[in-house]
Amino acid sequence: MPKTTDIVGAKKKTAKIQTHQRPTTMKYIYAFSEGRADMKPILGGKGAVLADMTRLGLPVPQGFTITTEACHYYHENSAYPKGLADELELQLKALERKTGKVFGSAENPLLVSVRSGAAISMPGMMDTILNLGLNDKTLAGLIKKTNNERFCYDAYRRFVNMFGDVVLGIEHAKFEEILDEMKNELSVKLDTGIGAKDLARLVKLYKAKVKEETGKDFPEDPREQLRLAIEAVFYSWNNDRAKAYRRINKITGLLGTAVNVQSMVFGNMGDTSGTGVAFTRNPSDGTKEFYGEFLINAQGEDVVAGIRTPQKISELKKVMPKVYSQLLAIQNKLEKHYKNMQDIEFTIEDEKLFMLQSRNGKRTIQAALKIATDMVKEKLITQAEAILQVDPNQINHLLHPTIPSSFKGKALCKGLPASPGASVGKAVFTPEDACEWNEKDEKVILVRKETSPEDIQGMYAAQGILTSMGGMTSHAAVVCRGMGKPCVAGCAAIHIDAKRKVCVCGETVIREWDTITINGSTGELFVGGVELQEPTMSNDFKLFMSWVDKFRKLKVRANADTPNDANVGRGFGAEGIGLCRTEHMFFEEDRIMKVREMIVAKNTEGRKTALNKLLPLQKGDFVGIFKEMNGYPVTIRLLDPPLHEFLPNTPAQIEELSKTMGIGVDELRSIVDSLHEINPMLGHRGCRLAVTYPEIYEMQARAIVEAAIEVHKKGIKVIPEIEIPIVGLATELKAMRNIVESVIKEYKGKINFEIKIGTMIELPRACVTADEIAEFADFFSFGTNDLTQMTYGFSRDDAGKFLSHYMDQGLFERDPTDTIDRKGVGGLMKLCIKLGRGVKPDLEVGICGEHGGEPKSVEFCHEIGLNYVSCSPYRVPIAKLAAAQAAIKEKLNQ
Amino acid sequence: MPKTTDIVGAKKKTAKIQTHQRPTTMKYIYAFSEGRADMKPILGGKGAVLADMTRLGLPVPQGFTITTEACHYYHENSAYPKGLADELELQLKALERKTGKVFGSAENPLLVSVRSGAAISMPGMMDTILNLGLNDKTLAGLIKKTNNERFCYDAYRRFVNMFGDVVLGIEHAKFEEILDEMKNELSVKLDTGIGAKDLARLVKLYKAKVKEETGKDFPEDPREQLRLAIEAVFYSWNNDRAKAYRRINKITGLLGTAVNVQSMVFGNMGDTSGTGVAFTRNPSDGTKEFYGEFLINAQGEDVVAGIRTPQKISELKKVMPKVYSQLLAIQNKLEKHYKNMQDIEFTIEDEKLFMLQSRNGKRTIQAALKIATDMVKEKLITQAEAILQVDPNQINHLLHPTIPSSFKGKALCKGLPASPGASVGKAVFTPEDACEWNEKDEKVILVRKETSPEDIQGMYAAQGILTSMGGMTSHAAVVCRGMGKPCVAGCAAIHIDAKRKVCVCGETVIREWDTITINGSTGELFVGGVELQEPTMSNDFKLFMSWVDKFRKLKVRANADTPNDANVGRGFGAEGIGLCRTEHMFFEEDRIMKVREMIVAKNTEGRKTALNKLLPLQKGDFVGIFKEMNGYPVTIRLLDPPLHEFLPNTPAQIEELSKTMGIGVDELRSIVDSLHEINPMLGHRGCRLAVTYPEIYEMQARAIVEAAIEVHKKGIKVIPEIEIPIVGLATELKAMRNIVESVIKEYKGKINFEIKIGTMIELPRACVTADEIAEFADFFSFGTNDLTQMTYGFSRDDAGKFLSHYMDQGLFERDPTDTIDRKGVGGLMKLCIKLGRGVKPDLEVGICGEHGGEPKSVEFCHEIGLNYVSCSPYRVPIAKLAAAQAAIKEKLNQ
Repeated sequence: MPKTTDIVGAKKKTAKIQTHQRPTTMKYIYAFSEGRADMKPILGGKGAVLADMTRLGLPVPQGFTITTEACHYYHENSAYPKGLADELELQLKALERKTGKVFGSAENPLLVSVRSGAAISMPGMMDTILNLGLNDKTLAGLIKKTNNERFCYDAYRRFVNMFGDVVLGIEHAKFEEILDEMKNELSVKLDTGIGAKDLARLVKLYKAKVKEETGKDFPEDPREQLRLAIEAVFYSWNNDRAKAYRRINKITGLLGTAVNVQSMVFGNMGDTSGTGVAFTRNPSDGTKEFYGEFLINAQGEDVVAGIRTPQKISELKKVMPKVYSQLLAIQNKLEKHYKNMQDIEFTIEDEKLFMLQSRNGKRTIQAALKIATDMVKEKLITQAEAILQVDPNQINHLLHPTIPSSFKGKALCKGLPASPGASVGKAVFTPEDACEWNEKDEKVILVRKETSPEDIQGMYAAQGILTSMGGMTSHAAVVCRGMGKPCVAGCAAIHIDAKRKVCVCGETVIREWDTITINGSTGELFVGGVELQEPTMSNDFKLFMSWVDKFRKLKVRANADTPNDANVGRGFGAEGIGLCRTEHMFFEEDRIMKVREMIVAKNTEGRKTALNKLLPLQKGDFVGIFKEMNGYPVTIRLLDPPLHEFLPNTPAQIEELSKTMGIGVDELRSIVDSLHEINPMLGHRGCRLAVTYPEIYEMQARAIVEAAIEVHKKGIKVIPEIEIPIVGLATELKAMRNIVESVIKEYKGKINFEIKIGTMIELPRACVTADEIAEFADFFSFGTNDLTQMTYGFSRDDAGKFLSHYMDQGLFERDPTDTIDRKGVGGLMKLCIKLGRGVKPDLEVGICGEHGGEPKSVEFCHEIGLNYVSCSPYRVPIAKLAAAQAAIKEKLNQ
Repeated sequence: MPKTTDIVGAKKKTAKIQTHQRPTTMKYIYAFSEGRADMKPILGGKGAVLADMTRLGLPVPQGFTITTEACHYYHENSAYPKGLADELELQLKALERKTGKVFGSAENPLLVSVRSGAAISMPGMMDTILNLGLNDKTLAGLIKKTNNERFCYDAYRRFVNMFGDVVLGIEHAKFEEILDEMKNELSVKLDTGIGAKDLARLVKLYKAKVKEETGKDFPEDPREQLRLAIEAVFYSWNNDRAKAYRRINKITGLLGTAVNVQSMVFGNMGDTSGTGVAFTRNPSDGTKEFYGEFLINAQGEDVVAGIRTPQKISELKKVMPKVYSQLLAIQNKLEKHYKNMQDIEFTIEDEKLFMLQSRNGKRTIQAALKIATDMVKEKLITQAEAILQVDPNQINHLLHPTIPSSFKGKALCKGLPASPGASVGKAVFTPEDACEWNEKDEKVILVRKETSPEDIQGMYAAQGILTSMGGMTSHAAVVCRGMGKPCVAGCAAIHIDAKRKVCVCGETVIREWDTITINGSTGELFVGGVELQEPTMSNDFKLFMSWVDKFRKLKVRANADTPNDANVGRGFGAEGIGLCRTEHMFFEEDRIMKVREMIVAKNTEGRKTALNKLLPLQKGDFVGIFKEMNGYPVTIRLLDPPLHEFLPNTPAQIEELSKTMGIGVDELRSIVDSLHEINPMLGHRGCRLAVTYPEIYEMQARAIVEAAIEVHKKGIKVIPEIEIPIVGLATELKAMRNIVESVIKEYKGKINFEIKIGTMIELPRACVTADEIAEFADFFSFGTNDLTQMTYGFSRDDAGKFLSHYMDQGLFERDPTDTIDRKGVGGLMKLCIKLGRGVKPDLEVGICGEHGGEPKSVEFCHEIGLNYVSCSPYRVPIAKLAAAQAAIKEKLNQ
């Protein structure tokens, strides 16, 4: 268990954020010296940081922030809020006092930058306007003050360009054209080759362009410039680009953007000025070192533009030792203050340092783990804080082979990143070929239009899967994620001809046995083999995961259908198997014919004969799995899919099967027809099969019991949990329980261990009647794949056609097949738990399926009191981290 | 509103039943004089009536009842409850005192009957044992007392036979054999031809048979006989026949059967004895008259056996005037006591009258209405009590043409009674033929394997539908019930050859134009025409319905897709249209091509062009409906089914359509293929269509608005309610609302009436998130057809295969597609209403679809506070009665 101090340490800051209350008299503008870090929702990220750094006593160019609430008001009422103009005037006056400059003054002009800044970072969403306040009059003042005519005209022409583009809506290219013409005329290549006079001429040409495009003169009044700029920032919040960005990045719940008005500082005023960006630690590997770059005589944009090569930050020590040591102290202070690796921006104006930005720095997962563990060792943060620092989704990169970042090859085309990791192999076009070549120890990539359950053997045999159709939840995608195997799905640019065993992408033809590389983390396809980087579990990772295990309350199990899956799951620290799908065993080559024999049997006797042939095979599977999972529970789900999934359906396949089975084609076809369902998802499946054919579940129960007895005899601890799918009625579960229990009774005296019998919860009715169902259940396990589809009344197979429109129109906050829909599906889950535990307070409740390994869903599972989540073996560490974070967040919010 | 006295009058009795408490010391046997009417749950129906008649001072052969709790104990513990034997002995002693006879006495023997009797009548479930207590010793006593040797031996041989059969499990046929042999030997035809000596010999032969079959002597000890008989009754409660009966009749929640032990009286002791059955009013037409039959010198079974023709009850006045007047007084008293028409049984032993049974008599709906209204006029019952007396399901018989009860023709075969009423017509085998002949004023019956939405015109044109496939919820069944048209579905005995236009049933061939009759109330098919009885709305019915209208709180609307449906609905008193399915209009011949044009359009413009052609047609439909529904709300559901339902899918049909539309076959096939869905029920339908193609709903909204404006101008009151189907997200409804509202805005100034916009509730998620959805809804309407299927996760199309197993195994209490599943689907409905009205307290909530006309579901809708139910026009009176009964029951339970 975590120490109390750990929690309290982390709690302090967050708790303050949570309890912040807005003042009752509406204030729409805060000077940086008035704001606080916890006012981020109304000041935006940038505004809050500038205020916070000001409070810390750091040198920040002063200014003020117009709140997101003003933006919200503007959009709701198509007008500025009342009193905003007066507040603005007061803040300007205060800023003039602080800077000793005057806005619009011809002698000592105050220039400002105007930037947008929402509470969540939306990079590049709204362009910055620099040097606002310049006009012909203030320019003169600036020249007089700086004694640098060229610099001033350069600033002026940049301002007219930016203002024209961002505020007045004149395409940037139109200004570029004029600039290019002038450079041609002057025969210079770089902007820096243009002198002050020509820059002055450029300003005139720009202004003429503005007049031509807008029919109005360029606004000379600085106050009008400011008013227009603020309005442009507000307006930009709801332009198409911004809305698209928020939709794509699933950003919701924001009021609007704040507007930061900040006095200008210049890094381009000569060799005693400069600008730079730096990280408090190395963002690639996490080393504790001051890491970054700077440019002398440059503005921020020049560092990004890459025209000049920046110098390493350590060089600054030589150039401006005082500034460097000040910066070093500041970065140290900032990291300690924010208790996280910082990404900082600064500008030096005439040897005077100004801090412009500080935020948590992006980092690789390797760096993230090193930083988190180092900071704990340095006693900078608690273990709990370290856990909260790492993004669970990033863990994924640790667990699969990857294309090294040094690789610069160009992808042939791009599909969907359907299952992470990269793999290299020879292209094959049929599952049979995949199996055949795999047996000869050749590494292959299976290339298919789409996959189906019949391809499962070939999918196992392949290193990875590439499909031209299907989405993130297609069969290939789901199965590969389960297997931890890379998959690029829905790669529409390739055309597959499985008969000719080729696939074509534009001019490129990939033939059978051509080596290809797929990157399931990005969706990229490469021709040829790429040398991959193998995943390594660093000591940092192991230490970090040991903390994770201490904090989390949710158990994490793996979904595993084979002894091999089970072994991988244990390797990743799975605490049991939460879902073992027995039907996957039915598709294997040595069984499918016996399964088909069972299906075409004319009566119970015939079915029993076929089932008896399957019994030893199923038993063998379970023996292997029980051995792997010594001491851990194994939840085995009895047969779930409708029987027609095991039969072929094309005329050719039917004819072939007819020969193999010695059954007339017509008879076989009529069996296939009779099993056809209009809505197979809502059809004869799960326990409904066993209501009709109890002998199927009876055989499966027998296989489990016999396997468990056999393994138990060897001194291995078996914990079998038999799970009934598609239960909607208590009476169904009661009947199924009777079938299983009567098998168990036959082995009375031989069973010295507990066998639990429980149910999947995947129908809305099971949730609503969970009190009745709990009477017959030793455990519940949510199957939120199906539950989501039933609750919404759509099938994933068909929804591809219309769900994209839902995402485009913003009708979904998040795709409910990606992450649990908390309100709808989650509401039913909560009801289910309440009713079930109302009857059996200690009822074990888990979840299996894709949501069980998705961090936001795991968090929800923790919140509603589940006992465990179960996911693909490869996502076990991700689920564990998400579970630990959820537990820590809960404590903080208590 | 009902007067308070009405309610209180009815309340008294029921309230007592509700509050009855069992004594804490367990008592397992009650003498008739100890029991009470309200102890029916433990005394069974028969035991409670015998006790009640005893309390009323009526001449009842005394006895006692062993409770259902004893039976329950017996089954739970496989043993008699402790103390039962002692109680039995005490009761026997008491009975001996009352009758002055002694059980087992050779001088004055007490004989008893032993009968089962559960709280709900289960006729023929357990055979009666008469004359128990007879053995060679007591027989002698009986002979001495009755001085009628033949009678006594006859009683004896009957007893041995019954006991052997019912208690010892020896087939009745084995005794019959011996009897037949003797009759042959004696050359007599009737039992009555056998004399006392031979009967005595028969007893011996019977006993020998018993010994032969069981290996034991026939039990001579009367106490052993009684013990064995009681156990046999207990045992019979859980035999297969009893379990099947309860399952078929949906009887649940009973403890077991009670056992009635009653002293014997004999109606066959000569001409001063007799037996009879009678009704207190005429059960056919309801006339207030003492109505029944009797037989002199006979036991009860003789009346039923029909060997002798009974006399009319009025004849008894001549034969035994004193007994008759006593009986007349008693029947009067019983009717007053039970406040309902009684069906009574009596026996006269030597001019002494004994009452054996009194229960509410079965009656026709015509009689039920007359009796109910008469009894109110007689001030015997209140209006509320009258309403509770009539079975809503019986109303159905009033509203359709029927085959008169006098018709004695034999049915050719039998299918499912899928839609009530009978109809006569010429057999046709295609919808086109149905339309063609209908236009020529020929009455036709459409005979199809199964029907599909494309057949709708033909179905309208036909008098009734006969199908060889499909169940009670098949397309034909559902549509016919909606149209109020008779339907016999799933008539598996007939083989239809639509090409040759014949259907064959065994030897019989029905050709096109052969006249046939179908009885949708029974499922029967007759060759030739039967003269039907037209439905009449009697004055009794009108009066009765006026009371119903006073008491009910639920409004009742009709589902209607055409002006004609609307007119029928109004005729039956519908208070609006609760569901107008616009897609039904799309299937009509003049529209389907335009719909298809819309579907195959390549872009929005093409779709809009096609939709513009549909607009005036849709508008015309709504004009007609609004006119019919002057002053009543009309809920119009926008397009619901997936688009592929409007396209053909066989190659031949596609080819034909390709020609008509001038589109290549391949192109058309690829469109059909692209619209194919794996689970169409969970596919692209309802408002999902309009998320993708908003122009569809826009056109429909326009048609509604324009129609409403046009009709409103004519001084007709229009109340349009626009309904959005398949809503699962508040954002969906918001988007749909925007589409409709923007159309409404276009007609600003022209609309002087309210247009509501609301939603169907047919997805579990809509229920769970009803608070969010309610924000955008003016009303909710439950679509429990779909809601049931989504909640259970089965589709009615596919569930036929497995739901029969569910019914057979008793996994369903009731088929949830017949009546609302209160716990599951109903639980979601309650949650939905709570959440929705939590946001909008006055939110109008209704239900449409089949459940809206099913009495138990209507009752539930009343209980959970719905505003209205909507059902087939032909079920409006049924729903109204069910609603009134629900309101009355609620008051009684308050």
